[in-house]
Amino acid sequence: MYDVAIIGSGPAGVSAAINLKIHNKKIIWFGNADLSKKAEKAELIQNYPGLNEVTGKQFVWALKNHVDQMGLTVTEELVTGVYDMGEYFGLMAKDNTYEAKAVILCLGVEEIKTVKGEENFVGRGVSYCATCDGFLYKGKKIGVLCTDKRYEYEIEYLCSLADTAYVMPIYKGVNVTAPNAKIIMQMPKEVKGGLKLNALIFKDSQIEVDGLFVLKGAISPATLMRGLNVEEGHVVVDRSCKTNIKGVFAAGDCTGRPYQYAKAIGEGNVAAHAVIEYLAKK
Amino acid sequence: MYDVAIIGSGPAGVSAAINLKIHNKKIIWFGNADLSKKAEKAELIQNYPGLNEVTGKQFVWALKNHVDQMGLTVTEELVTGVYDMGEYFGLMAKDNTYEAKAVILCLGVEEIKTVKGEENFVGRGVSYCATCDGFLYKGKKIGVLCTDKRYEYEIEYLCSLADTAYVMPIYKGVNVTAPNAKIIMQMPKEVKGGLKLNALIFKDSQIEVDGLFVLKGAISPATLMRGLNVEEGHVVVDRSCKTNIKGVFAAGDCTGRPYQYAKAIGEGNVAAHAVIEYLAKK
Repeated sequence: MYDVAIIGSGPAGVSAAINLKIHNKKIIWFGNADLSKKAEKAELIQNYPGLNEVTGKQFVWALKNHVDQMGLTVTEELVTGVYDMGEYFGLMAKDNTYEAKAVILCLGVEEIKTVKGEENFVGRGVSYCATCDGFLYKGKKIGVLCTDKRYEYEIEYLCSLADTAYVMPIYKGVNVTAPNAKIIMQMPKEVKGGLKLNALIFKDSQIEVDGLFVLKGAISPATLMRGLNVEEGHVVVDRSCKTNIKGVFAAGDCTGRPYQYAKAIGEGNVAAHAVIEYLAKK
Repeated sequence: MYDVAIIGSGPAGVSAAINLKIHNKKIIWFGNADLSKKAEKAELIQNYPGLNEVTGKQFVWALKNHVDQMGLTVTEELVTGVYDMGEYFGLMAKDNTYEAKAVILCLGVEEIKTVKGEENFVGRGVSYCATCDGFLYKGKKIGVLCTDKRYEYEIEYLCSLADTAYVMPIYKGVNVTAPNAKIIMQMPKEVKGGLKLNALIFKDSQIEVDGLFVLKGAISPATLMRGLNVEEGHVVVDRSCKTNIKGVFAAGDCTGRPYQYAKAIGEGNVAAHAVIEYLAKK
């Protein structure tokens, strides 16, 4: 049982992890070992006080250096579900489950908007994990929505199982070699079905499918955790970064604008201190 | 007329100033050219992401460097009052008055607690400015509460005017040479009076005075601005750092715990962006 699970390794997650480590909390930190691919792409950062005129790469390098010096490690697994078990939380990742007394969500902003209807079919045709659910679609027709070239190996894996895969890539330089992959350069505007999802609805057409895989770096907050108060895609938090669920905190871009490194780092700090207080009272 | 007045040059003020400068706002920034004497005293900072294991001096140096590179300057005047003039705010400093469309309060935490009754006698015996009000107490008896050796020259000045000055220093190495200065190593627990203040109440005694000067680096928020919503010494703000007064924002330690550099810098950023939005709508 971990004291705290931090989901996300952007600036908010870094700040939370550093503070919890200093306070000797037993943490598990999910994200990328590279911390933030997105921050790395920033051309020039002028408004992170103390590090003037650094590139995104230099900024992330400074964070990485800090994290390494403290002996923090990132667990590279995508958490696909967080469940409130009463006294603790259960976290579902690709191949493992984890337990923690408190959770800090540092999910960033969603790379793509949720498709209309998507949330209603989670576990009933919509999946975020090829490894977990791929076998359910052997010989079937599936849609695959993918946000990053990094996940192409998962597309290939799904194609090796499915009869036909309708691949909708939201990135450049698509290179899927499976003969049963049909590339569609359009996003579905809606998904429909009855007890299970059965169709992808496009602007002028629709495709019948048995399932939809959404391959992205982050799960939308509302999908990740049932009952979490989310407004316009942002996790609703109070001034101490508490969400509506006791023991669940959120920090950084996922809590809303301004989307700024300084704001994210400030909130990561605030959330960590709120968690420390929460654990002390428990 | 300035777009924004920032009061305070600690980490929150630095962050706000940097962001407003990038957005080409016309700002006046009150504080110390050294930014933060308090932060300078930190032995070791481990939890400001990107700058690991720096001393307080190194941290402030990094902020100073950033501020200098952006061409920002700090106006070294203590603001003693902020007045809501409807369409703008009037700011009273030692020798000057200023006008700004919006105000960001980055006041830090009070160095000393307000003495019971102090707020009731502001302008009726209680003063925060020796230069402004000293002449009112020629040949009279005054109390002088002082938080820092830096202000000793003001004590000497007050002694040159008053009949007797009861000096209550809250710092070490007191060196006041005026013969009419009486050093009291105790804080008054209350001030009393009728239309005007007339007595300092101590635990076991009381002293009759005509006035009390409080010499400190920052004015308490409630004293600085009438009508500002303050709870337990902290300015009440919402998630975008707005106070209850339209056009007035607050950031950093003055808005409450945790008292952390990262939190202050995050809030300075958030307040600056809220001000930019406020000015755009105006």
